[in-house]
Amino acid sequence: MTHSLLAQEIASQPTLLAGLLDRELAHIGRIVAALPPFQYVLLAARGSSDHAGIYAKYAWGALAGYPVALAAPSLHTLYAAPPRMAGALVVGVSQSGQSPDIVAVLAEGRRQGRPTIAVTNAPDSPLAAVADHVVALHVGREESVAATKTYTAQLAVMAAFAAHWNGDPHYLADLRRLPEAVAAILVGADAIAARAERYRYMNQCVVLGRGYNLATALELALKLKELTYVMATAYSSADFRHGPIATIAQGAPVIAVAPSGAAHADVRALAQEVRARGAELLLIADDPATLALAQTPLALPAGVPEWLSPLTAILPGQILALHLALAKGLNPDMPRGLHKVTKTT
Amino acid sequence: MTHSLLAQEIASQPTLLAGLLDRELAHIGRIVAALPPFQYVLLAARGSSDHAGIYAKYAWGALAGYPVALAAPSLHTLYAAPPRMAGALVVGVSQSGQSPDIVAVLAEGRRQGRPTIAVTNAPDSPLAAVADHVVALHVGREESVAATKTYTAQLAVMAAFAAHWNGDPHYLADLRRLPEAVAAILVGADAIAARAERYRYMNQCVVLGRGYNLATALELALKLKELTYVMATAYSSADFRHGPIATIAQGAPVIAVAPSGAAHADVRALAQEVRARGAELLLIADDPATLALAQTPLALPAGVPEWLSPLTAILPGQILALHLALAKGLNPDMPRGLHKVTKTT
Repeated sequence: MTHSLLAQEIASQPTLLAGLLDRELAHIGRIVAALPPFQYVLLAARGSSDHAGIYAKYAWGALAGYPVALAAPSLHTLYAAPPRMAGALVVGVSQSGQSPDIVAVLAEGRRQGRPTIAVTNAPDSPLAAVADHVVALHVGREESVAATKTYTAQLAVMAAFAAHWNGDPHYLADLRRLPEAVAAILVGADAIAARAERYRYMNQCVVLGRGYNLATALELALKLKELTYVMATAYSSADFRHGPIATIAQGAPVIAVAPSGAAHADVRALAQEVRARGAELLLIADDPATLALAQTPLALPAGVPEWLSPLTAILPGQILALHLALAKGLNPDMPRGLHKVTKTT
Repeated sequence: MTHSLLAQEIASQPTLLAGLLDRELAHIGRIVAALPPFQYVLLAARGSSDHAGIYAKYAWGALAGYPVALAAPSLHTLYAAPPRMAGALVVGVSQSGQSPDIVAVLAEGRRQGRPTIAVTNAPDSPLAAVADHVVALHVGREESVAATKTYTAQLAVMAAFAAHWNGDPHYLADLRRLPEAVAAILVGADAIAARAERYRYMNQCVVLGRGYNLATALELALKLKELTYVMATAYSSADFRHGPIATIAQGAPVIAVAPSGAAHADVRALAQEVRARGAELLLIADDPATLALAQTPLALPAGVPEWLSPLTAILPGQILALHLALAKGLNPDMPRGLHKVTKTT
């Protein structure tokens, strides 16, 4: 790849994920065992961390049966009207642990006597200080503005909670094998990099996913916006048919995230539909027949179960966004007008 | 305005809202009185109805103290793993009442013995059939593909629940006065129509809102996509600073939804920031000093309380999207490739 910090951070993910699992998997098991009963999860996050929360909505729903409500932090800060949290496990996800609105949600959970968990790369942060349990990401300081290694680490933490809550040991075994699959994608990074040039003059695009990989679509769209200033918009394939599909005309670029699993057929069918309308198709998938539909196939390793596929499926997107930034002559480490820590009140 | 069905449906909203309140306000009060205790709301919806759900997240949180979880219908359909709903009031919102995935969430709520409410324009629909309580919208058949009158009617239903749960009669009184304020915007429709031509060659834009009016930003972006094929993307002003602001360059069109209230200062500050980066600004606001920041001010009537402002703030957006479609030579009643009822499984 290149010598940017972003490239180094992308490349570090397999090793960091393995280290995170070594250090936190058993700890997360102990947290799960120690939690009092709760009926649903109230999760507060913004930006990439919010996408990890959207992943949790599917993983914790499907594997553990818990509904996940994404908090409206503005109720706490702007409106001074925090909701009653009876029945909730309150979770805050933040790379920096510093955004005052996310801290406010967790602090209110604690005030109401609810169990609280902070997932953060900064175990000495204000967010960690108000949580009963802190899960650290152990990925080192993230130097580039665009989150990569902290995002996949957050996903791994969400996956670990799902696996422990479920209790079937094969889920934990799947998770343990994941860093290998992530490493396999990096081996193909040069092929992805070589495709970036084709999109040098792309100024907008659509990113589609569904179920577990709605999070991937949202996160990939954010990477493209941050790093390449492309107006990328993510949709659930279900919602896309409710209106936004009208925007697709000849040549419109569409990135479909379609790894094998229960959501595959729906996203693939929509990819075929937009292709029939003349869209330029980029496909993130492991199935060769699906990849063959695309002008730009971005191959995933086979054998990753769908519930963990967001951890692999984002990698081709991170690599594409990096190389598209370079093709556009932009500095991937310093997007214009962004700061690493955004403090929202 | 024009003779399109869409124009007629937009213009019908004040009368229809008044009729809806006459017919359903007391009924909603009876539903509220009859509900068993619950700890949070699980709400299932897609498309414009989902935006009404996002409004409910703020209105029910701020006025009634209930956290609102937006359901992941795919857990029920794709993954056959419906979550445990203990403690939940289960609400389905759908214009047609026909989307199988939304029906599946309500049916599961009923199977688990939870209270269920359907909000729909079709009281004889499958969604209504599986609900304990049905709130009909009474707006007549919506002929144009893009939802307008059903969206504001859904907002009014959400507002009515919030007012009844809160119990302070001034909220109900505010709601009763709302149709007048909506009518006041229609009086200024020609001025909005006259501005549409300036955006004839716009092909993408950003729509910003926060708190209650995040719903407005999302719904306006959807109208622009459906009716004008402009790649419009909505953000919370809080999330926009976490990355997407990097996309703003000289001349980039930004629509900011900034009525008076607790969210006003934040959205206004962000509008000033993007203006400083050279953005072309369209502002939906009631405060004259805020409107003066914009190349295109879209004035709202003064005196509407923030919690009801999404019901007025969407109107200038509907009118702008209609006239931009006409300026682009498109048929506002028949967007390409859309159907009125989208059935998602």
